[in-house]
Amino acid sequence: MTAQDDDRHNEKMKKKKAVRDKIMSGKTVEKGLIIVHTGKGKGKSTAAMGMVCRTIGHNMKVGIIQFIKGAWATGEKQVFDAFPHLVTMQAMGEGFTWETQDKARDIAAAMKAWEAAKAMILDPEIRLVVCDEINVALRYDYIPLADVLETLAARPENSHVVLTGRNAAEELIEAADLVTEMTLLKHPFRSGVKAQAGIEF
Amino acid sequence: MTAQDDDRHNEKMKKKKAVRDKIMSGKTVEKGLIIVHTGKGKGKSTAAMGMVCRTIGHNMKVGIIQFIKGAWATGEKQVFDAFPHLVTMQAMGEGFTWETQDKARDIAAAMKAWEAAKAMILDPEIRLVVCDEINVALRYDYIPLADVLETLAARPENSHVVLTGRNAAEELIEAADLVTEMTLLKHPFRSGVKAQAGIEF
Repeated sequence: MTAQDDDRHNEKMKKKKAVRDKIMSGKTVEKGLIIVHTGKGKGKSTAAMGMVCRTIGHNMKVGIIQFIKGAWATGEKQVFDAFPHLVTMQAMGEGFTWETQDKARDIAAAMKAWEAAKAMILDPEIRLVVCDEINVALRYDYIPLADVLETLAARPENSHVVLTGRNAAEELIEAADLVTEMTLLKHPFRSGVKAQAGIEF
Repeated sequence: MTAQDDDRHNEKMKKKKAVRDKIMSGKTVEKGLIIVHTGKGKGKSTAAMGMVCRTIGHNMKVGIIQFIKGAWATGEKQVFDAFPHLVTMQAMGEGFTWETQDKARDIAAAMKAWEAAKAMILDPEIRLVVCDEINVALRYDYIPLADVLETLAARPENSHVVLTGRNAAEELIEAADLVTEMTLLKHPFRSGVKAQAGIEF
């Protein structure tokens, strides 16, 4: 690396910094966000869990509702149990429908989960609500989309809500502030690797 | 919902379950995975953090190396500090280069971070190593890709390594078991919303 290279690099980085500073100085609004994690890839629930960690770390209250059993369970629960004053976790889902094969029971479980989620979303004390795999319940029409959209619109100003799951509804994406699609480029299940602690659960 | 609808639904779900059971029974290999989170979307580091949570919850040791300052800091650190016997966190990165404008210093910092990462990856006691934003250091050629690939190949059999950051190198994607691309569909910065606790940091 010559001194000239170095100068060129520093000049380039100085410009980048100026652009970045200008962009960031225009960001002044603070408000609760509607966040959607969708797509067929991994990381939708896991990234929501990372946000739970961050929020707990700032000493703010979090609510978690699992619409489908098993997505989060053993691992993260141990961690959240260390912060009982901050985390309320409701494992309402009763398992994927291809496990239970009882549509009426699945609808009842999903509606129970939604009622709990609604109460959390409307509670001004709770700063982050994770509706894990709610998109699956919406897709099967187990819970009413209109009620979900109305509840999101009526939430306290500073409340963030994260909604995860494949096939997010168009109307939900429309209402959201931040939408990330997780796309699978490569998956070890294809080569016979089983689900493992820390990675899958 | 008629009884006939119900039967049809149950039949469909029974078939889904049979297919799924068959797929899962073929998954018997347990091994450490190379996992890449890339793409321009959000959730790359956050999902890695969620995996840290899970791993801690299973009482297994985790190592975290930040190649770029600031991606994780305040929020999650509070949480990890509750599990000092399980989490080793090294905030080696010295900030984006457009903040520092000193290439020589950036390379030195990145190499120091890489040496720490390498030791963690090769340590059989540590079950999950997160190399956060290492893809950025690789892209700027601050650390040698060949050494990263060799170290990954030489790691203990049960060690998982997560490598995050935009623009993952082709060779790294090739070597990985699981690659997820996070794609941004919608971002609140575009409408003037600033970075917020729990969401961005």
